[in-house]
Amino acid sequence: MNIGDDLSPATVIRIRDSFARQGLMRHLGADLAEVKAGLVTIRLPFRPELTQQHGYFHAGGTSSIADSAGGYAGFTLFPEDSSVLTVEFKLNLINPAQGDCLEAQGRVIKPGRTLTICHLDVWATTPDRRIHVATGLQTLICVRGKSA
Amino acid sequence: MNIGDDLSPATVIRIRDSFARQGLMRHLGADLAEVKAGLVTIRLPFRPELTQQHGYFHAGGTSSIADSAGGYAGFTLFPEDSSVLTVEFKLNLINPAQGDCLEAQGRVIKPGRTLTICHLDVWATTPDRRIHVATGLQTLICVRGKSA
Amino acid sequence: MNIGDDLSPATVIRIRDSFARQGLMRHLGADLAEVKAGLVTIRLPFRPELTQQHGYFHAGGTSSIADSAGGYAGFTLFPEDSSVLTVEFKLNLINPAQGDCLEAQGRVIKPGRTLTICHLDVWATTPDRRIHVATGLQTLICVRGKSA
Amino acid sequence: MNIGDDLSPATVIRIRDSFARQGLMRHLGADLAEVKAGLVTIRLPFRPELTQQHGYFHAGGTSSIADSAGGYAGFTLFPEDSSVLTVEFKLNLINPAQGDCLEAQGRVIKPGRTLTICHLDVWATTPDRRIHVATGLQTLICVRGKSA
Repeated sequence: MNIGDDLSPATVIRIRDSFARQGLMRHLGADLAEVKAGLVTIRLPFRPELTQQHGYFHAGGTSSIADSAGGYAGFTLFPEDSSVLTVEFKLNLINPAQGDCLEAQGRVIKPGRTLTICHLDVWATTPDRRIHVATGLQTLICVRGKSA
Repeated sequence: MNIGDDLSPATVIRIRDSFARQGLMRHLGADLAEVKAGLVTIRLPFRPELTQQHGYFHAGGTSSIADSAGGYAGFTLFPEDSSVLTVEFKLNLINPAQGDCLEAQGRVIKPGRTLTICHLDVWATTPDRRIHVATGLQTLICVRGKSA
Repeated sequence: MNIGDDLSPATVIRIRDSFARQGLMRHLGADLAEVKAGLVTIRLPFRPELTQQHGYFHAGGTSSIADSAGGYAGFTLFPEDSSVLTVEFKLNLINPAQGDCLEAQGRVIKPGRTLTICHLDVWATTPDRRIHVATGLQTLICVRGKSA
Repeated sequence: MNIGDDLSPATVIRIRDSFARQGLMRHLGADLAEVKAGLVTIRLPFRPELTQQHGYFHAGGTSSIADSAGGYAGFTLFPEDSSVLTVEFKLNLINPAQGDCLEAQGRVIKPGRTLTICHLDVWATTPDRRIHVATGLQTLICVRGKSA
Protein backbone atom coordinates (compact mmCIF):
# COMPACT_ATOMS: atom_id res chain seq x y z
CA MET A 1 0.00 0.00 0.00
CA ASN A 2 1.32 3.44 -0.89
CA ILE A 3 0.74 6.74 0.85
CA GLY A 4 -2.43 8.28 -0.58
CA ASP A 5 -3.99 4.97 -1.70
CA ASP A 6 -7.65 4.27 -1.02
CA LEU A 7 -8.42 2.37 2.15
CA SER A 8 -10.93 -0.41 2.75
CA PRO A 9 -14.35 0.88 3.85
CA ALA A 10 -13.83 -0.88 7.21
CA THR A 11 -10.66 1.10 7.88
CA VAL A 12 -12.28 4.39 6.91
CA ILE A 13 -15.16 3.61 9.30
CA ARG A 14 -12.69 2.76 12.09
CA ILE A 15 -11.01 6.18 11.60
CA ARG A 16 -14.30 8.09 11.37
CA ASP A 17 -15.63 6.39 14.52
CA SER A 18 -12.52 7.26 16.45
CA PHE A 19 -12.57 10.86 15.19
CA ALA A 20 -16.24 11.16 16.21
CA ARG A 21 -15.20 10.24 19.77
CA GLN A 22 -12.76 13.18 19.96
CA GLY A 23 -14.79 15.68 21.95
CA LEU A 24 -12.27 18.40 21.15
CA MET A 25 -12.63 18.09 17.37
CA ARG A 26 -16.41 18.48 17.67
CA HIS A 27 -16.08 21.36 20.13
CA LEU A 28 -13.73 23.20 17.76
CA GLY A 29 -15.98 22.43 14.78
CA ALA A 30 -13.41 20.37 12.87
CA ASP A 31 -14.31 17.72 10.31
CA LEU A 32 -12.47 14.89 8.63
CA ALA A 33 -12.10 15.95 5.01
CA GLU A 34 -9.98 13.14 3.58
CA VAL A 35 -8.89 9.70 4.79
CA LYS A 36 -6.37 7.86 2.62
CA ALA A 37 -3.58 5.42 3.46
CA GLY A 38 -1.12 7.37 5.59
CA LEU A 39 -2.70 10.67 4.60
CA VAL A 40 -5.46 12.47 6.48
CA THR A 41 -6.86 15.99 6.09
CA ILE A 42 -8.92 17.82 8.72
CA ARG A 43 -10.74 21.09 8.10
CA LEU A 44 -11.60 23.76 10.65
CA PRO A 45 -13.88 26.62 9.57
CA PHE A 46 -13.21 30.01 11.13
CA ARG A 47 -15.25 31.04 14.19
CA PRO A 48 -14.59 33.75 16.79
CA GLU A 49 -14.31 30.88 19.31
CA LEU A 50 -10.99 29.87 17.68
CA THR A 51 -9.11 33.17 17.79
CA GLN A 52 -6.02 34.52 19.49
CA GLN A 53 -5.77 38.15 20.63
CA HIS A 54 -5.43 39.63 17.11
CA GLY A 55 -8.47 37.86 15.71
CA TYR A 56 -6.57 35.21 13.71
CA PHE A 57 -6.80 31.47 14.33
CA HIS A 58 -5.02 30.65 17.62
CA ALA A 59 -2.00 28.38 17.23
CA GLY A 60 -3.80 26.00 19.58
CA GLY A 61 -6.47 25.32 16.94
CA THR A 62 -3.82 24.94 14.28
CA SER A 63 -1.88 22.47 16.40
CA SER A 64 -4.98 20.58 17.53
CA ILE A 65 -6.05 19.69 14.00
CA ALA A 66 -2.44 19.12 12.87
CA ASP A 67 -1.93 16.66 15.72
CA SER A 68 -5.19 14.82 14.95
CA ALA A 69 -4.48 14.73 11.21
CA GLY A 70 -1.05 13.19 11.79
CA GLY A 71 -2.35 10.78 14.42
CA TYR A 72 -5.05 9.45 12.11
CA ALA A 73 -2.68 9.33 9.13
CA GLY A 74 -0.54 6.96 11.17
CA PHE A 75 -3.56 5.07 12.52
CA THR A 76 -4.70 4.16 8.97
CA LEU A 77 -1.59 1.97 8.73
CA PHE A 78 -1.80 0.35 12.19
CA PRO A 79 -3.13 -3.15 12.88
CA GLU A 80 -6.77 -3.43 13.92
CA ASP A 81 -6.34 -4.13 17.61
CA SER A 82 -4.11 -1.16 18.29
CA SER A 83 -4.35 2.47 19.24
CA VAL A 84 -2.27 5.53 18.44
CA LEU A 85 -0.62 7.98 20.83
CA THR A 86 1.35 11.11 19.99
CA VAL A 87 4.87 10.91 21.42
CA GLU A 88 5.81 14.46 20.42
CA PHE A 89 5.27 17.04 17.75
CA LYS A 90 6.90 20.26 16.63
CA LEU A 91 5.24 22.98 14.62
CA ASN A 92 6.64 26.08 12.92
CA LEU A 93 4.05 28.79 12.44
CA ILE A 94 5.20 30.37 9.21
CA ASN A 95 2.39 32.79 8.26
CA PRO A 96 -0.55 34.40 10.08
CA ALA A 97 -3.40 31.88 10.25
CA GLN A 98 -6.01 34.13 8.70
CA GLY A 99 -8.78 32.90 6.41
CA ASP A 100 -12.16 31.20 6.16
CA CYS A 101 -10.88 27.78 7.00
CA LEU A 102 -7.79 25.88 8.13
CA GLU A 103 -6.82 22.64 6.43
CA ALA A 104 -4.37 20.37 8.26
CA GLN A 105 -2.74 17.46 6.51
CA GLY A 106 -0.84 14.65 8.20
CA ARG A 107 1.30 12.50 5.93
CA VAL A 108 3.26 9.44 7.07
CA ILE A 109 6.86 9.63 5.96
CA LYS A 110 8.14 6.63 7.90
CA PRO A 111 5.72 3.92 8.97
CA GLY A 112 7.00 1.51 11.60
CA ARG A 113 5.93 -1.35 13.81
CA THR A 114 6.40 0.75 16.96
CA LEU A 115 7.04 4.33 15.84
CA THR A 116 5.62 6.22 12.88
CA ILE A 117 6.80 9.65 11.73
CA CYS A 118 4.54 12.19 10.00
CA HIS A 119 4.91 15.51 8.28
CA LEU A 120 2.25 17.99 9.35
CA ASP A 121 1.18 20.94 7.21
CA VAL A 122 -1.58 23.47 7.70
CA TRP A 123 -3.01 25.94 5.19
CA ALA A 124 -5.45 28.82 5.63
CA THR A 125 -7.88 29.06 2.75
CA THR A 126 -9.96 31.93 1.39
CA PRO A 127 -12.13 31.77 -1.76
CA ASP A 128 -9.19 32.84 -3.90
CA ARG A 129 -6.07 31.50 -2.22
CA ARG A 130 -4.43 29.00 0.10
CA ILE A 131 -1.60 30.10 2.39
CA HIS A 132 0.83 27.70 4.05
CA VAL A 133 0.55 28.65 7.74
CA ALA A 134 2.35 25.86 9.57
CA THR A 135 4.70 22.96 8.97
CA GLY A 136 5.75 20.35 11.46
CA LEU A 137 6.89 16.88 12.40
CA GLN A 138 5.25 14.32 14.65
CA THR A 139 6.27 11.02 16.25
CA LEU A 140 3.50 8.49 16.92
CA ILE A 141 3.55 5.23 18.85
CA CYS A 142 1.41 2.21 18.08
CA VAL A 143 0.03 0.63 21.25
CA ARG A 144 -1.10 -2.97 20.74
CA GLY A 145 -4.08 -4.63 22.27
CA LYS A 146 -6.10 -1.50 22.93
CA SER A 147 -8.57 -0.77 20.24
CA ALA A 148 -9.62 2.82 19.42
CA MET B 1 13.77 41.86 37.07
CA ASN B 2 14.05 38.14 37.69
CA ILE B 3 11.86 35.33 36.41
CA GLY B 4 8.97 34.87 38.85
CA ASP B 5 9.07 38.45 40.22
CA ASP B 6 5.86 40.38 40.69
CA LEU B 7 4.83 42.63 37.81
CA SER B 8 3.37 46.12 37.88
CA PRO B 9 -0.46 46.14 38.01
CA ALA B 10 -0.46 47.81 34.56
CA THR B 11 1.47 44.92 33.03
CA VAL B 12 -0.79 42.33 34.65
CA ILE B 13 -3.82 44.17 33.24
CA ARG B 14 -2.24 44.29 29.78
CA ILE B 15 -1.75 40.48 29.90
CA ARG B 16 -5.25 39.79 31.27
CA ASP B 17 -6.84 42.03 28.61
CA SER B 18 -4.98 40.25 25.85
CA PHE B 19 -5.86 36.82 27.27
CA ALA B 20 -9.54 37.85 27.47
CA ARG B 21 -9.44 38.55 23.71
CA GLN B 22 -8.32 34.98 22.93
CA GLY B 23 -11.60 33.45 21.82
CA LEU B 24 -10.04 29.98 21.93
CA MET B 25 -9.07 30.16 25.62
CA ARG B 26 -12.64 31.12 26.55
CA HIS B 27 -14.11 28.43 24.27
CA LEU B 28 -11.91 25.77 25.89
CA GLY B 29 -12.71 27.09 29.37
CA ALA B 30 -9.12 28.04 30.26
CA ASP B 31 -8.20 30.69 32.81
CA LEU B 32 -5.07 32.63 33.66
CA ALA B 33 -3.98 31.28 37.03
CA GLU B 34 -0.68 33.12 37.57
CA VAL B 35 1.07 36.05 35.88
CA LYS B 36 4.62 36.80 37.02
CA ALA B 37 7.65 38.18 35.23
CA GLY B 38 8.51 35.63 32.55
CA LEU B 39 6.28 33.01 34.16
CA VAL B 40 2.63 32.39 33.36
CA THR B 41 0.32 29.53 34.38
CA ILE B 42 -2.95 28.67 32.63
CA ARG B 43 -5.50 26.18 33.98
CA LEU B 44 -7.95 24.12 31.98
CA PRO B 45 -10.63 22.14 33.88
CA PHE B 46 -11.70 18.82 32.39
CA ARG B 47 -14.81 18.73 30.17
CA PRO B 48 -15.97 16.10 27.66
CA GLU B 49 -15.53 18.85 25.02
CA LEU B 50 -11.74 18.57 25.46
CA THR B 51 -11.23 14.85 24.96
CA GLN B 52 -9.49 12.62 22.46
CA GLN B 53 -10.86 9.21 21.50
CA HIS B 54 -9.95 7.49 24.82
CA GLY B 55 -11.60 10.12 27.00
CA TYR B 56 -8.39 11.85 28.14
CA PHE B 57 -7.52 15.46 27.41
CA HIS B 58 -6.69 15.81 23.69
CA ALA B 59 -3.11 16.90 22.98
CA GLY B 60 -4.64 19.87 21.19
CA GLY B 61 -5.94 21.27 24.48
CA THR B 62 -2.62 20.57 26.15
CA SER B 63 -0.73 22.35 23.40
CA SER B 64 -3.19 25.25 23.20
CA ILE B 65 -2.72 26.23 26.83
CA ALA B 66 1.02 25.47 26.73
CA ASP B 67 1.42 27.78 23.72
CA SER B 68 -0.59 30.57 25.38
CA ALA B 69 1.24 30.21 28.70
CA GLY B 70 4.62 30.51 26.97
CA GLY B 71 3.46 33.37 24.75
CA TYR B 72 2.26 35.40 27.72
CA ALA B 73 5.33 34.52 29.79
CA GLY B 74 7.41 36.15 27.04
CA PHE B 75 4.95 39.02 26.62
CA THR B 76 5.36 40.07 30.29
CA LEU B 77 8.94 41.04 29.41
CA PHE B 78 8.21 42.84 26.12
CA PRO B 79 8.01 46.62 25.70
CA GLU B 80 4.54 48.18 25.83
CA ASP B 81 4.02 48.91 22.16
CA SER B 82 4.77 45.39 20.97
CA SER B 83 3.01 42.13 20.36
CA VAL B 84 4.05 38.50 20.63
CA LEU B 85 3.93 35.77 17.99
CA THR B 86 4.87 32.12 18.35
CA VAL B 87 7.60 31.19 15.87
CA GLU B 88 7.54 27.48 16.72
CA PHE B 89 7.02 25.08 19.57
CA LYS B 90 7.71 21.44 20.30
CA LEU B 91 5.96 19.34 22.89
CA ASN B 92 6.69 15.86 24.23
CA LEU B 93 3.60 14.17 25.64
CA ILE B 94 5.12 12.12 28.44
CA ASN B 95 2.10 10.76 30.36
CA PRO B 96 -1.63 10.34 29.65
CA ALA B 97 -3.35 13.68 30.23
CA GLN B 98 -5.93 12.38 32.65
CA GLY B 99 -7.25 14.35 35.62
CA ASP B 100 -9.60 17.07 36.83
CA CYS B 101 -7.55 19.90 35.43
CA LEU B 102 -4.53 20.68 33.28
CA GLU B 103 -2.02 23.29 34.39
CA ALA B 104 0.35 24.70 31.77
CA GLN B 105 3.33 26.77 32.75
CA GLY B 106 5.44 28.85 30.39
CA ARG B 107 8.78 30.04 31.75
CA VAL B 108 11.21 32.28 29.89
CA ILE B 109 14.67 30.80 29.81
CA LYS B 110 16.23 33.30 27.42
CA PRO B 111 14.67 36.73 26.98
CA GLY B 112 15.80 38.72 23.97
CA ARG B 113 15.12 41.90 22.05
CA THR B 114 13.84 39.95 19.03
CA LEU B 115 13.53 36.30 20.10
CA THR B 116 12.57 34.84 23.46
CA ILE B 117 12.80 31.15 24.36
CA CYS B 118 10.48 29.43 26.87
CA HIS B 119 10.22 26.09 28.55
CA LEU B 120 6.67 24.74 28.52
CA ASP B 121 5.38 22.22 31.06
CA VAL B 122 1.94 20.81 31.60
CA TRP B 123 0.62 18.85 34.57
CA ALA B 124 -2.66 16.99 35.10
CA THR B 125 -3.99 17.42 38.60
CA THR B 126 -6.37 15.37 40.70
CA PRO B 127 -7.25 16.07 44.35
CA ASP B 128 -4.34 13.94 45.51
CA ARG B 129 -1.66 14.23 42.86
CA ARG B 130 -0.08 16.16 40.02
CA ILE B 131 1.33 14.30 37.01
CA HIS B 132 3.77 15.81 34.54
CA VAL B 133 2.04 15.21 31.19
CA ALA B 134 4.01 17.33 28.73
CA THR B 135 7.27 19.22 28.39
CA GLY B 136 8.31 21.46 25.56
CA LEU B 137 10.21 24.38 24.11
CA GLN B 138 8.92 27.46 22.35
CA THR B 139 10.44 30.31 20.33
CA LEU B 140 8.63 33.67 20.42
CA ILE B 141 9.19 36.82 18.39
CA CYS B 142 8.56 40.34 19.63
CA VAL B 143 6.88 42.47 16.97
CA ARG B 144 7.27 46.21 17.62
CA GLY B 145 4.70 48.88 17.01
CA LYS B 146 1.64 46.66 17.20
CA SER B 147 0.07 46.66 20.59
CA ALA B 148 -1.81 43.60 21.87
CA MET C 1 13.94 33.98 -7.66
CA ASN C 2 12.55 30.51 -7.01
CA ILE C 3 13.91 27.77 -4.76
CA GLY C 4 16.42 25.74 -6.77
CA ASP C 5 17.28 28.51 -9.25
CA ASP C 6 20.88 29.18 -10.18
CA LEU C 7 22.67 31.85 -8.16
CA SER C 8 25.07 34.54 -9.31
CA PRO C 9 28.71 33.41 -9.24
CA ALA C 10 29.38 36.06 -6.56
CA THR C 11 26.78 34.52 -4.25
CA VAL C 12 28.12 31.01 -4.80
CA ILE C 13 31.62 32.26 -3.94
CA ARG C 14 30.30 33.97 -0.79
CA ILE C 15 28.74 30.65 0.33
CA ARG C 16 31.81 28.58 -0.55
CA ASP C 17 34.11 31.02 1.28
CA SER C 18 31.96 30.88 4.39
CA PHE C 19 31.76 27.07 4.23
CA ALA C 20 35.56 26.89 3.89
CA ARG C 21 35.85 28.79 7.18
CA GLN C 22 33.80 26.17 9.06
CA GLY C 23 36.55 24.22 10.77
CA LEU C 24 34.05 21.51 11.75
CA MET C 25 32.98 20.74 8.17
CA ARG C 26 36.64 20.26 7.16
CA HIS C 27 37.39 18.18 10.27
CA LEU C 28 34.44 15.88 9.52
CA GLY C 29 35.40 15.68 5.84
CA ALA C 30 32.20 17.26 4.49
CA ASP C 31 31.95 19.05 1.16
CA LEU C 32 29.48 21.39 -0.43
CA ALA C 33 27.86 19.39 -3.23
CA GLU C 34 25.22 21.80 -4.50
CA VAL C 35 24.48 25.50 -3.96
CA LYS C 36 21.23 26.81 -5.47
CA ALA C 37 18.83 29.52 -4.39
CA GLY C 38 17.42 28.37 -1.06
CA LEU C 39 18.70 24.85 -1.60
CA VAL C 40 22.06 23.49 -0.45
CA THR C 41 23.39 19.93 -0.34
CA ILE C 42 26.36 18.80 1.76
CA ARG C 43 28.01 15.40 1.45
CA LEU C 44 29.88 13.50 4.13
CA PRO C 45 31.76 10.34 3.14
CA PHE C 46 31.89 7.54 5.70
CA ARG C 47 34.96 7.30 7.97
CA PRO C 48 35.44 5.45 11.27
CA GLU C 49 35.95 8.91 12.81
CA LEU C 50 32.23 9.60 12.31
CA THR C 51 30.69 6.57 13.99
CA GLN C 52 28.51 5.91 17.00
CA GLN C 53 28.87 2.77 19.12
CA HIS C 54 27.35 0.38 16.52
CA GLY C 55 29.58 1.54 13.68
CA TYR C 56 26.95 3.63 11.86
CA PHE C 57 27.18 7.38 11.30
CA HIS C 58 26.69 9.17 14.64
CA ALA C 59 23.61 11.40 14.77
CA GLY C 60 26.02 14.23 15.54
CA GLY C 61 27.50 14.01 12.04
CA THR C 62 24.04 13.78 10.54
CA SER C 63 22.88 16.84 12.43
CA SER C 64 26.09 18.81 11.78
CA ILE C 65 25.73 18.62 8.02
CA ALA C 66 21.94 19.05 8.16
CA ASP C 67 22.38 22.23 10.21
CA SER C 68 25.02 23.61 7.83
CA ALA C 69 22.99 22.70 4.73
CA GLY C 70 19.94 24.51 6.08
CA GLY C 71 21.97 27.48 7.28
CA TYR C 72 23.56 27.98 3.87
CA ALA C 73 20.27 27.39 2.05
CA GLY C 74 18.89 30.35 3.99
CA PHE C 75 22.09 32.37 3.56
CA THR C 76 21.82 32.21 -0.26
CA LEU C 77 18.71 34.41 0.08
CA PHE C 78 20.10 36.90 2.61
CA PRO C 79 21.39 40.38 1.77
CA GLU C 80 25.14 40.75 1.29
CA ASP C 81 26.05 42.47 4.53
CA SER C 82 24.38 39.92 6.78
CA SER C 83 25.15 36.69 8.53
CA VAL C 84 23.08 33.64 9.43
CA LEU C 85 22.55 32.04 12.82
CA THR C 86 20.58 28.91 13.66
CA VAL C 87 17.83 29.68 16.17
CA GLU C 88 16.77 26.06 16.59
CA PHE C 89 16.45 22.81 14.74
CA LYS C 90 14.69 19.49 15.22
CA LEU C 91 15.64 16.24 13.58
CA ASN C 92 13.86 12.88 13.45
CA LEU C 93 16.26 9.99 12.84
CA ILE C 94 14.10 7.65 10.82
CA ASN C 95 16.48 4.92 9.60
CA PRO C 96 19.96 3.71 10.61
CA ALA C 97 22.54 6.03 9.02
CA GLN C 98 24.52 3.31 7.30
CA GLY C 99 26.18 3.72 3.92
CA ASP C 100 29.16 5.08 2.00
CA CYS C 101 28.10 8.67 2.26
CA LEU C 102 25.52 10.95 3.87
CA GLU C 103 23.83 13.65 1.83
CA ALA C 104 22.10 16.47 3.71
CA GLN C 105 19.80 18.86 1.95
CA GLY C 106 18.50 22.13 3.37
CA ARG C 107 15.57 23.68 1.54
CA VAL C 108 14.00 27.03 2.42
CA ILE C 109 10.25 26.73 2.80
CA LYS C 110 9.60 30.21 4.16
CA PRO C 111 12.09 33.00 3.49
CA GLY C 112 11.75 36.10 5.62
CA ARG C 113 13.41 39.41 6.41
CA THR C 114 14.22 38.29 9.95
CA LEU C 115 13.41 34.56 10.18
CA THR C 116 13.75 31.87 7.55
CA ILE C 117 12.42 28.31 7.92
CA CYS C 118 14.02 25.28 6.25
CA HIS C 119 13.22 21.64 5.79
CA LEU C 120 16.23 19.41 6.44
CA ASP C 121 16.60 15.93 4.96
CA VAL C 122 19.47 13.49 5.10
CA TRP C 123 20.01 10.36 3.01
CA ALA C 124 22.59 7.58 3.31
CA THR C 125 23.81 6.42 -0.07
CA THR C 126 25.40 3.20 -1.23
CA PRO C 127 26.26 2.35 -4.86
CA ASP C 128 22.80 0.89 -5.40
CA ARG C 129 20.45 2.80 -3.14
CA ARG C 130 19.62 5.93 -1.16
CA ILE C 131 17.90 5.67 2.18
CA HIS C 132 16.13 8.56 3.91
CA VAL C 133 17.79 8.63 7.34
CA ALA C 134 16.64 11.93 8.86
CA THR C 135 14.08 14.67 8.37
CA GLY C 136 13.87 17.93 10.25
CA LEU C 137 12.96 21.56 10.54
CA GLN C 138 15.18 24.56 11.23
CA THR C 139 14.63 28.22 12.11
CA LEU C 140 17.33 30.69 11.00
CA ILE C 141 17.80 34.35 11.84
CA CYS C 142 19.36 36.93 9.54
CA VAL C 143 21.72 39.24 11.41
CA ARG C 144 22.38 42.51 9.55
CA GLY C 145 25.64 44.35 9.36
CA LYS C 146 27.92 41.43 10.08
CA SER C 147 29.29 39.86 6.99
CA ALA C 148 30.13 36.14 6.93
CA MET D 1 16.94 4.81 41.88
CA ASN D 2 16.69 8.56 41.51
CA ILE D 3 18.11 10.78 38.80
CA GLY D 4 21.66 11.73 39.79
CA ASP D 5 22.26 8.69 42.03
CA ASP D 6 25.52 6.79 41.81
CA LEU D 7 25.55 3.78 39.50
CA SER D 8 27.12 0.37 39.99
CA PRO D 9 30.71 0.18 38.69
CA ALA D 10 29.54 -2.38 36.10
CA THR D 11 27.04 0.09 34.64
CA VAL D 12 29.60 2.89 34.55
CA ILE D 13 32.00 0.58 32.70
CA ARG D 14 29.25 -0.40 30.22
CA ILE D 15 28.65 3.30 29.47
CA ARG D 16 32.36 4.16 29.22
CA ASP D 17 32.98 1.19 26.90
CA SER D 18 30.17 2.23 24.62
CA PHE D 19 31.32 5.87 24.61
CA ALA D 20 34.87 4.74 23.74
CA ARG D 21 33.46 3.03 20.63
CA GLN D 22 31.93 6.30 19.35
CA GLY D 23 34.49 7.30 16.74
CA LEU D 24 32.90 10.73 16.44
CA MET D 25 33.33 11.62 20.12
CA ARG D 26 37.05 10.78 19.92
CA HIS D 27 37.45 12.65 16.62
CA LEU D 28 35.84 15.76 18.12
CA GLY D 29 37.93 15.42 21.30
CA ALA D 30 34.98 14.94 23.66
CA ASP D 31 35.20 13.16 27.00
CA LEU D 32 32.70 11.70 29.42
CA ALA D 33 32.85 13.97 32.47
CA GLU D 34 30.09 12.54 34.64
CA VAL D 35 27.99 9.35 34.59
CA LYS D 36 25.16 9.15 37.11
CA ALA D 37 21.74 7.49 37.00
CA GLY D 38 19.84 9.23 34.22
CA LEU D 39 22.36 12.07 34.13
CA VAL D 40 25.43 12.26 31.90
CA THR D 41 27.79 15.16 31.18
CA ILE D 42 30.15 15.32 28.19
CA ARG D 43 32.87 17.95 27.77
CA LEU D 44 34.32 19.24 24.52
CA PRO D 45 37.39 21.52 24.69
CA PHE D 46 37.65 24.24 22.06
CA ARG D 47 39.75 23.57 18.93
CA PRO D 48 39.75 25.31 15.55
CA GLU D 49 38.54 21.97 14.13
CA LEU D 50 35.16 22.57 15.82
CA THR D 51 34.29 26.02 14.53
CA GLN D 52 31.66 27.56 12.33
CA GLN D 53 32.39 30.51 10.04
CA HIS D 54 32.65 33.12 12.83
CA GLY D 55 35.12 31.11 14.89
CA TYR D 56 32.66 29.94 17.56
CA PHE D 57 31.77 26.32 18.23
CA HIS D 58 29.67 24.99 15.31
CA ALA D 59 26.13 23.95 16.30
CA GLY D 60 27.07 20.52 14.96
CA GLY D 61 29.55 20.02 17.81
CA THR D 62 27.05 21.33 20.31
CA SER D 63 24.37 18.97 19.05
CA SER D 64 26.74 15.99 18.76
CA ILE D 65 27.68 16.07 22.43
CA ALA D 66 24.13 16.97 23.51
CA ASP D 67 22.78 13.95 21.62
CA SER D 68 25.40 11.62 23.13
CA ALA D 69 24.89 12.99 26.66
CA GLY D 70 21.14 12.41 26.43
CA GLY D 71 21.55 8.99 24.82
CA TYR D 72 23.87 7.79 27.59
CA ALA D 73 21.73 9.36 30.31
CA GLY D 74 18.88 7.16 29.06
CA PHE D 75 21.17 4.15 28.59
CA THR D 76 22.18 4.18 32.30
CA LEU D 77 18.58 3.19 33.08
CA PHE D 78 18.15 0.54 30.38
CA PRO D 79 18.38 -3.23 30.98
CA GLU D 80 21.74 -4.87 30.26
CA ASP D 81 20.92 -6.62 27.01
CA SER D 82 19.61 -3.52 25.26
CA SER D 83 20.84 -0.65 23.18
CA VAL D 84 19.77 2.95 22.80
CA LEU D 85 18.78 4.84 19.65
CA THR D 86 17.84 8.49 19.30
CA VAL D 87 14.35 8.84 17.83
CA GLU D 88 14.50 12.64 17.55
CA PHE D 89 15.91 15.68 19.22
CA LYS D 90 15.32 19.42 19.13
CA LEU D 91 17.80 22.06 20.20
CA ASN D 92 17.42 25.81 20.69
CA LEU D 93 20.71 27.66 20.36
CA ILE D 94 20.24 30.49 22.83
CA ASN D 95 23.66 32.16 23.06
CA PRO D 96 26.84 32.16 20.95
CA ALA D 97 28.83 29.02 21.77
CA GLN D 98 32.06 30.80 22.63
CA GLY D 99 34.46 29.66 25.32
CA ASP D 100 37.23 27.26 26.29
CA CYS D 101 34.97 24.27 26.58
CA LEU D 102 31.42 23.09 26.00
CA GLU D 103 29.64 21.02 28.62
CA ALA D 104 26.56 19.08 27.53
CA GLN D 105 24.25 17.52 30.08
CA GLY D 106 21.56 14.97 29.32
CA ARG D 107 18.99 14.40 32.06
CA VAL D 108 16.18 11.85 31.92
CA ILE D 109 12.86 13.43 32.71
CA LYS D 110 10.65 10.47 31.83
CA PRO D 111 12.13 6.98 31.84
CA GLY D 112 10.08 4.30 30.10
CA ARG D 113 10.18 0.67 29.04
CA THR D 114 10.18 1.64 25.35
CA LEU D 115 10.65 5.43 25.17
CA THR D 116 12.70 7.70 27.40
CA ILE D 117 12.62 11.49 27.28
CA CYS D 118 15.59 13.71 28.18
CA HIS D 119 16.27 17.37 28.66
CA LEU D 120 19.49 18.47 26.97
CA ASP D 121 21.47 21.53 28.06
CA VAL D 122 24.80 22.85 26.89
CA TRP D 123 27.00 25.49 28.51
CA ALA D 124 30.14 27.23 27.27
CA THR D 125 32.68 27.71 30.01
CA THR D 126 35.57 30.14 30.44
CA PRO D 127 37.74 30.41 33.56
CA ASP D 128 35.34 32.93 35.07
CA ARG D 129 31.91 32.08 33.77
CA ARG D 130 29.49 29.51 32.35
CA ILE D 131 26.98 30.56 29.68
CA HIS D 132 23.90 28.55 28.79
CA VAL D 133 24.26 28.10 25.01
CA ALA D 134 21.64 25.49 24.12
CA THR D 135 18.59 23.77 25.54
CA GLY D 136 16.71 20.90 24.01
CA LEU D 137 14.57 17.80 24.23
CA GLN D 138 15.29 14.28 23.06
CA THR D 139 13.28 11.08 22.60
CA LEU D 140 15.18 7.77 22.94
CA ILE D 141 14.09 4.23 22.22
CA CYS D 142 15.32 1.15 24.06
CA VAL D 143 16.03 -1.71 21.67
CA ARG D 144 16.09 -5.11 23.42
CA GLY D 145 18.41 -7.96 22.70
CA LYS D 146 21.21 -5.93 21.13
CA SER D 147 23.90 -5.09 23.57
CA ALA D 148 25.97 -1.90 23.17
